[in-house]
Amino acid sequence: MDFEGETTAALDTMFVLFSGYLVFMMQNGFAMLTAGSVRTKNTKNVLLKNLLDACVGAMGYWIFGYAFAYGNPIDPDTDEEIVNPFIGHTYFALANLPEDAFVSFFFQWTFAATAATIVSGSVAERTSFYAYLGYAFFLTSFVYPVVSHWVWGGGWLSTLFEVGVIDFAGCSVVHMVGGVAGLVGAILVGPRMGRFDAEGNVVPMPGHSATLCTLGTFILWFGWYGFNPGSTLAIFGTGSTLTAQRCAVTTTLAAAAAGLVVLIIVKIRDHIFDLISVLNGVLAGLVSITAVCFSAEPYAAVVIGGIGGGLYLLGGWALLKLKIDDPLEAFPIHGVCGAWGCFAVGLFSTPWGQLNAGLGVDGDRVIHTGAFYINPDTDSRSGVLLGANCIAILVIAAWTAALIGSLFLIFKFAGILRISPEIEILGNDVSKHGGSAYPEEPLETGPPAKDNLGFDESMKIPHKAEKEEGFVEDDIDAEKTVEV
Amino acid sequence: MDFEGETTAALDTMFVLFSGYLVFMMQNGFAMLTAGSVRTKNTKNVLLKNLLDACVGAMGYWIFGYAFAYGNPIDPDTDEEIVNPFIGHTYFALANLPEDAFVSFFFQWTFAATAATIVSGSVAERTSFYAYLGYAFFLTSFVYPVVSHWVWGGGWLSTLFEVGVIDFAGCSVVHMVGGVAGLVGAILVGPRMGRFDAEGNVVPMPGHSATLCTLGTFILWFGWYGFNPGSTLAIFGTGSTLTAQRCAVTTTLAAAAAGLVVLIIVKIRDHIFDLISVLNGVLAGLVSITAVCFSAEPYAAVVIGGIGGGLYLLGGWALLKLKIDDPLEAFPIHGVCGAWGCFAVGLFSTPWGQLNAGLGVDGDRVIHTGAFYINPDTDSRSGVLLGANCIAILVIAAWTAALIGSLFLIFKFAGILRISPEIEILGNDVSKHGGSAYPEEPLETGPPAKDNLGFDESMKIPHKAEKEEGFVEDDIDAEKTVEV
Amino acid sequence: MDFEGETTAALDTMFVLFSGYLVFMMQNGFAMLTAGSVRTKNTKNVLLKNLLDACVGAMGYWIFGYAFAYGNPIDPDTDEEIVNPFIGHTYFALANLPEDAFVSFFFQWTFAATAATIVSGSVAERTSFYAYLGYAFFLTSFVYPVVSHWVWGGGWLSTLFEVGVIDFAGCSVVHMVGGVAGLVGAILVGPRMGRFDAEGNVVPMPGHSATLCTLGTFILWFGWYGFNPGSTLAIFGTGSTLTAQRCAVTTTLAAAAAGLVVLIIVKIRDHIFDLISVLNGVLAGLVSITAVCFSAEPYAAVVIGGIGGGLYLLGGWALLKLKIDDPLEAFPIHGVCGAWGCFAVGLFSTPWGQLNAGLGVDGDRVIHTGAFYINPDTDSRSGVLLGANCIAILVIAAWTAALIGSLFLIFKFAGILRISPEIEILGNDVSKHGGSAYPEEPLETGPPAKDNLGFDESMKIPHKAEKEEGFVEDDIDAEKTVEV
Repeated sequence: MDFEGETTAALDTMFVLFSGYLVFMMQNGFAMLTAGSVRTKNTKNVLLKNLLDACVGAMGYWIFGYAFAYGNPIDPDTDEEIVNPFIGHTYFALANLPEDAFVSFFFQWTFAATAATIVSGSVAERTSFYAYLGYAFFLTSFVYPVVSHWVWGGGWLSTLFEVGVIDFAGCSVVHMVGGVAGLVGAILVGPRMGRFDAEGNVVPMPGHSATLCTLGTFILWFGWYGFNPGSTLAIFGTGSTLTAQRCAVTTTLAAAAAGLVVLIIVKIRDHIFDLISVLNGVLAGLVSITAVCFSAEPYAAVVIGGIGGGLYLLGGWALLKLKIDDPLEAFPIHGVCGAWGCFAVGLFSTPWGQLNAGLGVDGDRVIHTGAFYINPDTDSRSGVLLGANCIAILVIAAWTAALIGSLFLIFKFAGILRISPEIEILGNDVSKHGGSAYPEEPLETGPPAKDNLGFDESMKIPHKAEKEEGFVEDDIDAEKTVEV
Repeated sequence: MDFEGETTAALDTMFVLFSGYLVFMMQNGFAMLTAGSVRTKNTKNVLLKNLLDACVGAMGYWIFGYAFAYGNPIDPDTDEEIVNPFIGHTYFALANLPEDAFVSFFFQWTFAATAATIVSGSVAERTSFYAYLGYAFFLTSFVYPVVSHWVWGGGWLSTLFEVGVIDFAGCSVVHMVGGVAGLVGAILVGPRMGRFDAEGNVVPMPGHSATLCTLGTFILWFGWYGFNPGSTLAIFGTGSTLTAQRCAVTTTLAAAAAGLVVLIIVKIRDHIFDLISVLNGVLAGLVSITAVCFSAEPYAAVVIGGIGGGLYLLGGWALLKLKIDDPLEAFPIHGVCGAWGCFAVGLFSTPWGQLNAGLGVDGDRVIHTGAFYINPDTDSRSGVLLGANCIAILVIAAWTAALIGSLFLIFKFAGILRISPEIEILGNDVSKHGGSAYPEEPLETGPPAKDNLGFDESMKIPHKAEKEEGFVEDDIDAEKTVEV
Repeated sequence: MDFEGETTAALDTMFVLFSGYLVFMMQNGFAMLTAGSVRTKNTKNVLLKNLLDACVGAMGYWIFGYAFAYGNPIDPDTDEEIVNPFIGHTYFALANLPEDAFVSFFFQWTFAATAATIVSGSVAERTSFYAYLGYAFFLTSFVYPVVSHWVWGGGWLSTLFEVGVIDFAGCSVVHMVGGVAGLVGAILVGPRMGRFDAEGNVVPMPGHSATLCTLGTFILWFGWYGFNPGSTLAIFGTGSTLTAQRCAVTTTLAAAAAGLVVLIIVKIRDHIFDLISVLNGVLAGLVSITAVCFSAEPYAAVVIGGIGGGLYLLGGWALLKLKIDDPLEAFPIHGVCGAWGCFAVGLFSTPWGQLNAGLGVDGDRVIHTGAFYINPDTDSRSGVLLGANCIAILVIAAWTAALIGSLFLIFKFAGILRISPEIEILGNDVSKHGGSAYPEEPLETGPPAKDNLGFDESMKIPHKAEKEEGFVEDDIDAEKTVEV
């Protein structure tokens, strides 16, 4: 390769590698956020699930996922990619993958793992371990890869209405997949014991550490700079250079605006400055801008983020009205705002941003832009891009709900979807993970909502000192019951 | 653009973007450090303030800050920047900002947010929420941007005495602004209840988690590699490449030396190996080297950092003697060491380092160097650079103290500067933020220093289980009182 | 320098700098992992030790370490490096170091600090502070640098059997040095009080926070992307570009496979899903792939990682059988898997990977590859590389054990190796560090295993409120006893 080729390859590889590192760090962010959002008695459980997301996801995406997503074989005669519009079908277990595509596998794995980990929050504290592992493998090896093939891998959505669906960093492809899967999971698993009282009122179940939630959210924000600017997939070339830096700015402004909108609305509604809501608001803003970060104007990022903050609160309120228990509000954040962000592309995508990123263009000609902008090449507005993205929202939501719903129903009929009530009261940690995450802290005070459960003294959480004398805390032997 | 231009742009943009990501991560570091340094009852309060620094700072810096700092319009006739020596005046809300300057806005916003967040430590645990938000907006949209215009944006300090003030990564521009603002705030808000007893002796008020302090400090050190090397603002070109790597080395050595100096001094003084002091010592070293990191020799970095460690201890001692309560010692660390670091440029700045960075030079000719070095172009020593930097220290300290002091005095007279004694005893978290950051932990033992407050049983912190049954913990309605 | 040279320098410097930042962040990961793995009463102690690793390591590596490792002077006549096969001998305190080698010092320091910090886990909770500081200085300034000179600095192992030892990112050079030093330390310091009961059975001593362990492990995984891909030391050039991205993929797959293997084995053995074991398993996988990450095929990474997971469990089991107390299992993870990873190079190193990285090649000709691959240049298999690496394993283990063992024996005879039983029962934090890491939490319940220690009421840990009224908690004056 000549100097110019080597320079370009080095620049783009470095850019995608380091962006991928940041996206990987989001696993840590989700782990801390989830841990902080659950009660002490389930901390180790959710931490392990988050860690295994990354591990199971790596195996699933290595064996199947990348192949289904980007496995477009090269025609030896024409030297061009042969694209199946529905699914990729080569590079299983990375066999025959060109050496310069390893970086692509790495980067895309971090996205698959992100999609998987979003769900862990929705089904936290009461889902069985095996169901979770099965779900994580299925999502990272099939459900998510197929969606990403449609939009990013040359599949049918990428050519819809000539312009193709535009979802730059994955509002629909990543976040809506995770959020919808979480919603389906939360519905099928059912609410945590005591989450709604006899009259159907919500019983607060605050997580055990707001500090961990904050730590996790900051790490996620940090990781988002890999997620959004990194989705440029290149830094060399004027268009890429301009796109990446625009992404960093729009991502920042959307997060900040959403956080402030949520701060104000919750202050008016509940008369408190609610840290957890603002943290979620920031995440809602980050999700909302993810699809159009590459081409939105700064003011638009503020608007998109701010509306995303409001939609998150609306979605969270609706879930509680419907008695759906989503402990981390993953559906309002990732599902609702993911859909909103994908929709927002159809409104706010600028022609110059699309030219920089080479999206929705034919050479130097822009095909369709966001409906709020006049296309300089046609001198008219158009809702075609908006229409394409709306179809993507509907199709991806339906696909995810159908597949994940089927899997969770199978688990349900097999009796391995949810843990037993005894384990749920005791907590997963002492029941299945060998003891508390904080073995030196007294647990006598119990979970905040325990009085609502009407359990008697015999069910009382034993004192830690009794539970941890032996190597294995296994009075309730997971092997002997189906509730795992 | 041709290949060479595109390569340079891609390299420099990537370098500044990723450096900016690291500086952003410092928000997380400050949040963890501050949270760990306050008592449990105010944890959510300080976390939310730290998060809102970033959010409010993004809005403030977007609308006004960047324009005041770097808004030098281009003269359409000469194609040159029109620089007002006092303040920038275009690009408000990024209007008409060239697309290739988005990265600059992003990077500079992370610095503005850093300056803002430094203060949160000085005024922690007793300042009202509205006062804090107002301050954060004022600092990021006006006070800090004007200072950065003077030194970095072509303003009057950047041309002082021909050589101009040299403050590479912001000892005076960022840290001293934050530290002095914190000092003014700490004085005007007054000490926390019980911080000094009736005889004026200091009552220890240890933060609730040394682990969080350590986590935060490590993250800050990590982020400093974005702050200092990143301030090269470019990586392409021999001078930039050499400057960035020197910054990484000097930053490391100064931090390490300062930590060890503090370890030894405190061991001798107090007979303990004091983790918190060493953490602060490391930060003191990092601040101290920030101005001259680009050109200091390795030995000089050790000296500068080591002296910085000692000055931090001296400053912390002086504050307590003066009965000023700065819970995170933000003034000794950022204010005192910021001034010291700016001063140190005038002593330790090497001619070769200045040539690499293109600072204080006229073409290949060095104008003035640190007083300890002979300028090869004049074959003499000179104190002119030291003089320029001393003027910067005085002017910036005065500017910050005057403006922030005025704002805080307005808040004070309006009665919204400080929370009420009742809220201070109960803690901000249960009073205004809906409950404890750790709702499962019993709070009966109360804060360590409660006996000094002489409060009676009726003021006792209620048991968590009582406080968190309802959605909103709002017995003390912030709306009904001015103490917010 | 011309444009091509400047571009290459900028690319490679940026790559190594940012990789080094990630490796530095591993200090934070180790700090959190270690803190979470010890009991509350020693938290500040281990945090301070981890912080001082970095500080002492920076001083030691600055004054001596880098010189011993890479101090090969340039012959003024031939302009070539003069390499002493045993030790480097110039650039002490970075004197006369070329300006473009500063990045090398920075990157290599982060590795030295990693080697040092590994040990802190093995000797945690009962080693004296002075012994630890002495050890950290000795390891970073002499023991580790000499090893790295042998393998990476042109020393005798780098030319062994013509092919030279190949240890890409430091399985033997970094991890085995740390792990073996930890083993020697754990043996000589002896087990923690109460770790084995009168019958020799293991008494569980769980760390105080599984959340911190998880946080630390994720940060370490993140940092490993600096450690392994960063060890390419360049990104420009087709070979480097391909090597770096392969490293990212193999590192990921090995970590994931090891975590899953450990999950399954421990579930079968102990009937629990054990978070801590899986965390350690992930680390074992990361260590195992470190030497051959640059050239392993993806399937091989899975195999190497999976075996590493099993070896970690085996090593941990063996230590307990031998009544060696290694609180963080640093030897099984870093020592055993470090040796395994170095061995695995001799099996799995591919010829194309070596060509990309320029290791074990002579121009375009591969000298020897892993024994599982046919060398295309000789059309035969060979065990020579395996043999060279086995020699490296033995020599490095012996060197480390001899030197560190001698130092620890000297400390032992001087009576400053281990803290007194009184301090061990009370905990380091209240004894030597001024109070608990969490001063607001009641400590009455004491450590989980206290009943095994048979101490009486008079030794009971005093209530926090009593201990922290004064500035200095120093009833047990460290100055008056040798137990520090």
